[in-house]
Amino acid sequence: MKVDLSVRGMRDYFPEIYYRLNRIFRVWRETALSYGFEEFDGPVIETLDLYRIKSGEEIVKQLYNFTDKGGRELALRPELTPTIARMVSRIQNEVPKPIKWFSIPRCMRYEKPQKGRLREFFQYNVDIIGEDEGIADVEVISVAVDSLCRLGLSEKDFVVRINNRNFVSGYFSSLGFDKRITGALYKIIDNAAKVNSETTSSALEELGLYRAQNEAVRKYLSLKSAGDLKTFEVTNSGKEALLNVFSLLEAAEINEFCAFDPTVVRGLDYYTGTVFEIFGRSEKMRAICGGGRYNNLLKEFSGVDIPACGFGMGDVVLGEILAEKGLVPPYEKSIDYFIVRVTDNELDLTLKIARSLRNRGRRVEYNYKLIPVKKQMARASRVRSAKVLILGADEISTGTVVEKDLATGVEAETPIKSFFE
Amino acid sequence: MKVDLSVRGMRDYFPEIYYRLNRIFRVWRETALSYGFEEFDGPVIETLDLYRIKSGEEIVKQLYNFTDKGGRELALRPELTPTIARMVSRIQNEVPKPIKWFSIPRCMRYEKPQKGRLREFFQYNVDIIGEDEGIADVEVISVAVDSLCRLGLSEKDFVVRINNRNFVSGYFSSLGFDKRITGALYKIIDNAAKVNSETTSSALEELGLYRAQNEAVRKYLSLKSAGDLKTFEVTNSGKEALLNVFSLLEAAEINEFCAFDPTVVRGLDYYTGTVFEIFGRSEKMRAICGGGRYNNLLKEFSGVDIPACGFGMGDVVLGEILAEKGLVPPYEKSIDYFIVRVTDNELDLTLKIARSLRNRGRRVEYNYKLIPVKKQMARASRVRSAKVLILGADEISTGTVVEKDLATGVEAETPIKSFFE
Repeated sequence: MKVDLSVRGMRDYFPEIYYRLNRIFRVWRETALSYGFEEFDGPVIETLDLYRIKSGEEIVKQLYNFTDKGGRELALRPELTPTIARMVSRIQNEVPKPIKWFSIPRCMRYEKPQKGRLREFFQYNVDIIGEDEGIADVEVISVAVDSLCRLGLSEKDFVVRINNRNFVSGYFSSLGFDKRITGALYKIIDNAAKVNSETTSSALEELGLYRAQNEAVRKYLSLKSAGDLKTFEVTNSGKEALLNVFSLLEAAEINEFCAFDPTVVRGLDYYTGTVFEIFGRSEKMRAICGGGRYNNLLKEFSGVDIPACGFGMGDVVLGEILAEKGLVPPYEKSIDYFIVRVTDNELDLTLKIARSLRNRGRRVEYNYKLIPVKKQMARASRVRSAKVLILGADEISTGTVVEKDLATGVEAETPIKSFFE
Repeated sequence: MKVDLSVRGMRDYFPEIYYRLNRIFRVWRETALSYGFEEFDGPVIETLDLYRIKSGEEIVKQLYNFTDKGGRELALRPELTPTIARMVSRIQNEVPKPIKWFSIPRCMRYEKPQKGRLREFFQYNVDIIGEDEGIADVEVISVAVDSLCRLGLSEKDFVVRINNRNFVSGYFSSLGFDKRITGALYKIIDNAAKVNSETTSSALEELGLYRAQNEAVRKYLSLKSAGDLKTFEVTNSGKEALLNVFSLLEAAEINEFCAFDPTVVRGLDYYTGTVFEIFGRSEKMRAICGGGRYNNLLKEFSGVDIPACGFGMGDVVLGEILAEKGLVPPYEKSIDYFIVRVTDNELDLTLKIARSLRNRGRRVEYNYKLIPVKKQMARASRVRSAKVLILGADEISTGTVVEKDLATGVEAETPIKSFFE
């Protein structure tokens, strides 16, 4: 029997694939730790209600959900934020604020698999909970930027597009826009970066906007930089917060990675202040990362008002960009010692030396089956062992083995007892 | 609103819990790497058929399964072995043997949650594929033993109980046992360690065994050591293989962790040779680890005969044993520098120094909101920062900051430029 039993949209992480993934995880983890974040995780299985609370019935179409054998309506997590909210609500009275947490959860979404989008993925989540200062927004943006830089990307490769939901909503409400069209309006704004201005304009007309309102939206969309923003006629608290964020980004010297972008409004209802998305500068791809401030979300779970901000960064789009930029180091199995035995009389000593070196932190292999020495040497090269130990009766009788450095070819007789010291 | 949205049998891995889990993962990973194994993983979602192939319809009751929106019958993986078989079948013509793979998959089972058993868990898997030598069996046992030792356990804490399925089946078939009762017989044998000999005896009678057969089983069950095994009247290839394994375990100097145990037969159909289970010596608990040789399993997936052996070790029972033995180090957040600023005039410099030190691999925090210096110092102690940098206008005007070692209390003036070198 030979049938294809793999599931659409899922990946098999063979060692050379897992190695690339693990490198991303390591950089993500080290960067978040360097910022003083603590690692946590939640279960893959949550109640379906957890997602309904935040996103309504609409979300159910986009995730894996099912009823378990006990009749529970469950879902496989499509993202971590609802889990964070649920977990924080369990402990928020006991821990000092701000809570600085990060995680690299495995998530699943029932989406059409395509470039940059799979049904199983990993998503780096970095969140600061219990802090309403703009500096916290800057801190999470900084973690995202440094994580990408440590993977080899630079300001030439990606840009953090930043906006503020309070600025946008304040501006449009000051113009007398009907609140009921906010959702549709944000969709047009979000889309404006991808289409030409005529398309945007006619979409705005279809929405039933007056000519003056249409003009106001187009004027808003013409803002290209934090400088434009500063001189923009409108003033509200969102704009002040946004300008403060840009000034802090400059102080932290990450402003060259960042730009104001009026089209960034983030579709999700729960964002309240700073919002941002990271895109590759050249690719027509999905966002590498998205995040912002979600001050009202935790209240829905805990009943207590706790401000929060954070981001999610998936492994799929990022992995594709790293590959395109040639920033994926080749996979090499790395072994410190390969032990070659001349006959099976040396098998016992092979086992003893191997275990001793391994327990001293060295990576050690030997061939399980006795094969000719030449073939064992070939295998040592194939697994890229740094050194080979050759165990032969003559040397062993004098208490030594031959140690060969495979890079230099240099051979020496090494006392057996040195492997046990 | 404050409702409990957590799912039965699932864990929330808060930072102090994740820290303990992560320590286990790190030791598992380092040990397997030291043996030259390569890390891989598969998806959490597999086809339900993948598990039916191996375990029949019975398995469906014990796992989470569902039909997705595309009508696919899917399951959340309850273990990794079928995934390994599926993945190996994809690449087995391309890669040299033996394949030495390990993984730390997240798995889910629909079981009644209880001590040592949860619905979501992690399971260390170590497998050697394409090698039929007893030394490969010994190698995986050795990885399991060393992983536990590196977590602080010793031969006083756990024992590897070893047997060989070919020895058992060969013995009983030589006695003319009906093959159809093998399953029921193995269950009684497996249970014999937990009940008294009368219970075992009457269970054997119920099975319809003749008195002589019943005697033969009890004689088999009276074998207590590899020494007993050696002098046991029966000889077959399974016994020879088992004695060879014990002799290699002695050569590798891990025999003190191991014992022959006739009651270890492993319920699963697919085991063929060496089988083993690891138990805590004192606890009445589920096995820490189970494994063995499964030479026929891969044939079912790939059509090609590939011998294999390996084990699975879950995090739940192991975590409980480590806690009972006091082998869980306390969680401490670890920070290298906490930056204290006297006023917000020093915020820009705080951001610059923080980012520079972080990108040099140091863990750095500061307070987002400006609070009194005394409170900032208290926060530095609470996060157990090694050092505090105090940024005040006077020192900054001379190009320095005050650096205080929180362990010794010693203060010094450090040039600001040193943080950027």
